[in-house]
Amino acid sequence: MINEKAYALGANRSAIRDLFEYGRQRCAVVGEENVFDYSLGNPYIPAPAEVNETVRQLLAGTDPLQLHGYTSAVGDLQTRQAIADDLNLRYGTAVSPEELFIGCGAAPELCAVFRALAFPGAQILAIAPFFPEYRPFVESAGADFQVVPADVPDFQIRMDVLEEMLTPNTAAIILNSPNNPAGTVYTSETLYKLAALLRKKSAEAGHPIYIVADEPYRELVYGDVEVPFIPTIYENTVVCYSYSKSLSLPGERIGYVYVPAQAADSKQLYAAVCGAARSAGHVCAPSLWQKVIARCAHLRPDLQAYDRNRRALYEGLVNAGYEVAKPEGAFYLFVKAPGGNAAAFSEKAKKKDVLVVPGDSFGCPDYFRVCYCVSYDKIIRSLPLFEALIKE
Amino acid sequence: MINEKAYALGANRSAIRDLFEYGRQRCAVVGEENVFDYSLGNPYIPAPAEVNETVRQLLAGTDPLQLHGYTSAVGDLQTRQAIADDLNLRYGTAVSPEELFIGCGAAPELCAVFRALAFPGAQILAIAPFFPEYRPFVESAGADFQVVPADVPDFQIRMDVLEEMLTPNTAAIILNSPNNPAGTVYTSETLYKLAALLRKKSAEAGHPIYIVADEPYRELVYGDVEVPFIPTIYENTVVCYSYSKSLSLPGERIGYVYVPAQAADSKQLYAAVCGAARSAGHVCAPSLWQKVIARCAHLRPDLQAYDRNRRALYEGLVNAGYEVAKPEGAFYLFVKAPGGNAAAFSEKAKKKDVLVVPGDSFGCPDYFRVCYCVSYDKIIRSLPLFEALIKE
Repeated sequence: MINEKAYALGANRSAIRDLFEYGRQRCAVVGEENVFDYSLGNPYIPAPAEVNETVRQLLAGTDPLQLHGYTSAVGDLQTRQAIADDLNLRYGTAVSPEELFIGCGAAPELCAVFRALAFPGAQILAIAPFFPEYRPFVESAGADFQVVPADVPDFQIRMDVLEEMLTPNTAAIILNSPNNPAGTVYTSETLYKLAALLRKKSAEAGHPIYIVADEPYRELVYGDVEVPFIPTIYENTVVCYSYSKSLSLPGERIGYVYVPAQAADSKQLYAAVCGAARSAGHVCAPSLWQKVIARCAHLRPDLQAYDRNRRALYEGLVNAGYEVAKPEGAFYLFVKAPGGNAAAFSEKAKKKDVLVVPGDSFGCPDYFRVCYCVSYDKIIRSLPLFEALIKE
Repeated sequence: MINEKAYALGANRSAIRDLFEYGRQRCAVVGEENVFDYSLGNPYIPAPAEVNETVRQLLAGTDPLQLHGYTSAVGDLQTRQAIADDLNLRYGTAVSPEELFIGCGAAPELCAVFRALAFPGAQILAIAPFFPEYRPFVESAGADFQVVPADVPDFQIRMDVLEEMLTPNTAAIILNSPNNPAGTVYTSETLYKLAALLRKKSAEAGHPIYIVADEPYRELVYGDVEVPFIPTIYENTVVCYSYSKSLSLPGERIGYVYVPAQAADSKQLYAAVCGAARSAGHVCAPSLWQKVIARCAHLRPDLQAYDRNRRALYEGLVNAGYEVAKPEGAFYLFVKAPGGNAAAFSEKAKKKDVLVVPGDSFGCPDYFRVCYCVSYDKIIRSLPLFEALIKE
């Protein structure tokens, strides 16, 4: 007499996690240096030094009751003000603290937003390739999860297919740009087309169709690529942000939800996000980390190490004959499997202790994901293995 | 087209929170020193000095990637081992790390456990007086919430009434001891009787009826009162613990779930707790705080300040003629309202800037809660006001 869905989710680890655990076992057998584990999206550059320095200053200069005490459920005003200031400086927006809710990272924030948007019979769409946890998040919020097929090989959006899938039951569409797993960024052109389509379909449906923008990788872009700030393009956008990647604090669980004042039913939606979070046991985001963000919201990651890895791996794979999505952001390459079956390719690669995640769970079974959060040396030493694999 | 339940929960603040906000406003008008705010259960003694010292040591001696990185979803092994060691030392148990799940405080832990236990049609019982958030937690887990009436004036359990309320649909009963709001502790005698009743009713139902023990106040007891460790009395007990009160870290969101190996379907239930947490966006508990708990799980709070407040307030109220539940733990007094209508009493008290929470939302509308997390001086200065109130 146990909840079957909860049991199934707990008993069946994700494919990514399984591969990672396999890698740990192989390290014990053949040595850490001989396992090329491209499975897990775990930040590889440390948090900026200012972060730990800020923690030290807070410990020295703040009453512990205040430092570690409950904050308001929506988060400290100073933290929300610092985030609003940073957004306004960068995007010319007029975000106010009342539009921000400090959450425990993108995952619980998305869950709260999905639940807030889940009217009876609601459907929420994701665009392949997509982060696999969206499915349990949406389904446990009580909504139906549907996937828009991938736009291969550019990984933008197939507007014609999407148009057919948008119905009066569609509550929202999830965008994740820079994208996990594709490493691609939706262009302004794509986003303006999408906005026009959503406005038209919202009018037909008689209610707003929201964009839920999952943006943990917003700061992780390379060269002169720009990541458009979606609320400035489509008014009915809710942003879920995390400092996991931008400040390399994935374990500390801190981020925010932004419900723009110009979004339809903005105040009601903000209240519903608060209520949904409350019903999942949200009390407040970790207090110390809120106070760190109040002082560090303006910091940006040093991407040199990621960029060097990205270029070496991309060039190496392309030169070897692989077809690779143009890697503009995040820390992933999305690669077409030679032969078209990524699950089979991943198994072959495992035999050479090269661990890549087949795209099945991302909604793209002919692609595999390579997370380049590894040492540069490993990237270089793995290239001959990739070359051998494509020749097989 | 927004989820109505989520909106209602977000738009309607709790009565406690409302009263607290009113107190803030009054402070601005009549001065902090003239407002006797007994509304909020916010720890009043600071975290032990070892806690901040441990944070400093971790910052100095740990690789930031490891310190702030993702941990396993169930929590760092070292943290779980430290908690198991501490429990085993205190209770003579044989808890192993595999039975522990590190969560983000009692609230999300309870939500995960309720969802894990919510088979179709499941009912979960609370015993009045109870923490009001149990209701949204249980209902959003998909179970039916029922309340066992209070055992006045001792605040143990009315076994006869409970026996009638236990049905084949009962999945669990929530125990909160030391109790918020009553400040009482369930005796061993009560718990052994309850265990016998639950065993009998489980057999009749054909499935285990679990106890969910919500224990953030376990360490907060006074004099020679002992808090029985419920899993040693009833095998089918799941414990939800938090360090919010015991280490005065309420804002940092760290605690654990203990699913004993001897509980029925233990491994399945543990997996279901993991799955339920995952479906609500749990990734891991804050990493830095996990590492602090690994070194500080054995620390106990210094209760002198609470105890001094407790005795002064209890004696003052009893001498003034109030009927007060015997305050053995937590930091609450539960007081019978003169005239029997606590909502009316609370309104009268507000006029004297004495803020006490009427028991309606706790399931006891004739009692009010006094949280004595305030300065001793305020307690003493408020006693004449309580005396005047009972004479009115």
